[in-house]
Amino acid sequence: MQLPLKNDLFLRACRGEKTERPPVWIMRQAGRYMPEYQEIRKKTSFLGLCKTPDLAAQATMLPIEMLGVDAAILFSDILIPVEAMGMELHFSEHKGPSFPHPVQGRQDVDRLLVPDPVSHTGFVAEAIREINKRLAGRVPLIGFSGAPFTLATYMVEGEISKDFSRVKQMMFSDPATLHTLLDRITETVIRYLEMQIEAGIHAYQIFDTWAGSLSPVHYRSFALPYVRRIVDSLKRYGIPSILYVNGSCSLLEDMVTAGTDVVSVDWRMSLSNVRERVPPAIAIQGNLDPVSLLGSPEILKEEARRVMEEMEGRSGYIFNLGHGILPSTPVSMAQYLVSLVQKGPDVPMPHHAGRR
Amino acid sequence: MQLPLKNDLFLRACRGEKTERPPVWIMRQAGRYMPEYQEIRKKTSFLGLCKTPDLAAQATMLPIEMLGVDAAILFSDILIPVEAMGMELHFSEHKGPSFPHPVQGRQDVDRLLVPDPVSHTGFVAEAIREINKRLAGRVPLIGFSGAPFTLATYMVEGEISKDFSRVKQMMFSDPATLHTLLDRITETVIRYLEMQIEAGIHAYQIFDTWAGSLSPVHYRSFALPYVRRIVDSLKRYGIPSILYVNGSCSLLEDMVTAGTDVVSVDWRMSLSNVRERVPPAIAIQGNLDPVSLLGSPEILKEEARRVMEEMEGRSGYIFNLGHGILPSTPVSMAQYLVSLVQKGPDVPMPHHAGRR
Repeated sequence: MQLPLKNDLFLRACRGEKTERPPVWIMRQAGRYMPEYQEIRKKTSFLGLCKTPDLAAQATMLPIEMLGVDAAILFSDILIPVEAMGMELHFSEHKGPSFPHPVQGRQDVDRLLVPDPVSHTGFVAEAIREINKRLAGRVPLIGFSGAPFTLATYMVEGEISKDFSRVKQMMFSDPATLHTLLDRITETVIRYLEMQIEAGIHAYQIFDTWAGSLSPVHYRSFALPYVRRIVDSLKRYGIPSILYVNGSCSLLEDMVTAGTDVVSVDWRMSLSNVRERVPPAIAIQGNLDPVSLLGSPEILKEEARRVMEEMEGRSGYIFNLGHGILPSTPVSMAQYLVSLVQKGPDVPMPHHAGRR
Repeated sequence: MQLPLKNDLFLRACRGEKTERPPVWIMRQAGRYMPEYQEIRKKTSFLGLCKTPDLAAQATMLPIEMLGVDAAILFSDILIPVEAMGMELHFSEHKGPSFPHPVQGRQDVDRLLVPDPVSHTGFVAEAIREINKRLAGRVPLIGFSGAPFTLATYMVEGEISKDFSRVKQMMFSDPATLHTLLDRITETVIRYLEMQIEAGIHAYQIFDTWAGSLSPVHYRSFALPYVRRIVDSLKRYGIPSILYVNGSCSLLEDMVTAGTDVVSVDWRMSLSNVRERVPPAIAIQGNLDPVSLLGSPEILKEEARRVMEEMEGRSGYIFNLGHGILPSTPVSMAQYLVSLVQKGPDVPMPHHAGRR
């Protein structure tokens, strides 16, 4: 049913192939930094946007049209399937997501559903079909899900946390309950990603953003096995998978055993170190510091050059940031970055980039 | 002038010697988790406490009396010398420290003083003398300072930051101004630590807490050289030095070149990995996850055992947490941890530890 892709650089790099240049996309590439996104967002709430296929598709298309990135990523939120598990979810402009009734113990876990994805989150499948129509094969579409541990942090903390002390307190006092919670999330995520794949995504990324708060021994117990189970369950579809962890320096050797085709790393590591530690068959994605897009174009050019030099000659490399693009990023700087990767260091620099 | 120490385990471990057991102290060991600290704190503001030698000495002594740790650490705050540089400083119970007039550019940097430590922060020297009187040689006293990069993050961000985007924006747009700021902070820190050493501390720790937000290449340019300059300047005093960085996994090989006797690491790394990477002449401090003190005593015992096993047979090891103790920690769990390290796994477990 899918159209042949006009630009399959991203998929080839995911499969570990050597590409003429690195494909480039940007985590959170459709987001608050774009005035055009703000316009779409005015029409509804953040959750409303995620749940309206037409608007989600509009948002997804913005970076394709405005930056010319080599892959689209579904506009959605990692907490969408968690809400479907039966947890009341709020978003506020300043504090981000919150669960007014966080998971505090066994009883709360037992109340959670493993929702049927189509009846609870069918709007995501619809958005995917709508996006693919609009993309018309220009670039591949990436689907995604939060990883079980990262989703559990939100569910137990109830809001964005500085030290993850609630979820880790559960880990250090009642690990069995945390494992039950992670198990239920894992089942949910598998079905949720199956739905996305059946709707037409070309690859998927698992965001285990907060697993970098764990020591390696706890990562191996409370994060990695659940990601591995998801990846194993979806292998039969044969589409590429990416695992992202923020702060993964001490976890890298474990991360690569999750079985994804790509590991995505943050900016705290040098890619020369990463390529030494990741087997050649696994592709690497990353890792420019998102703050470098808030600085001068001269320094951005230098930073992008360094990142690409560190990966020079390495097959299977996807250029990206080390974390999501910041809301205060000037669009012109994001455009400049994409051009630098696609066309080289001589592309013209933006003027007046210093917007905050 | 200093009394001979009755317990010099900590200093011997700092010097890389093999000790009968690891010495133990806890970052922020005198702090909000202790009701006795809250009592002292009621008498004045947080800054008032730091600036009243008698009260600072009282707070410093609490963990010596209540936990029996092997080292005292001066009760103070890393921002004390920054205030003395001419920056208005506020502390609020909920939001922590803030600078209402953060450093935004060259002009703000040029206005900063390199203060004379005795006339601006003499209360710190007085507190040190008072603490040593009370300690009467029982255990050594650790002095400390924030590292230049970490102090600069507070000065530029103006408050606790999630992504350090302001200070890094300066790094990516006007690195010369950031270097000038770091240079000025470095001079201030050297004089400030000289004063502490002359007042009688037995060792000092440099907290480069937020340097872990930098990529290795930026760490080598904006953090490491300034720490090295401080350590070099103070070498003539011959007292041990410790460098702490939170999230230092990708920086460890650089950190050890700062010249401190000890590197202090957070819980995200396994100590077996750390000991492979740190030369044997340099001591290691860390690295229990502070959240493990909020869990069950059984699991805490297991966690402490694992950490100690990873360092078994390694000379120059100091037991500590990977970050400061959390305000919600039950005192009984901190006491239990210290006993586990000092007396072994058979010490009695605390009852009713589940306080939050």
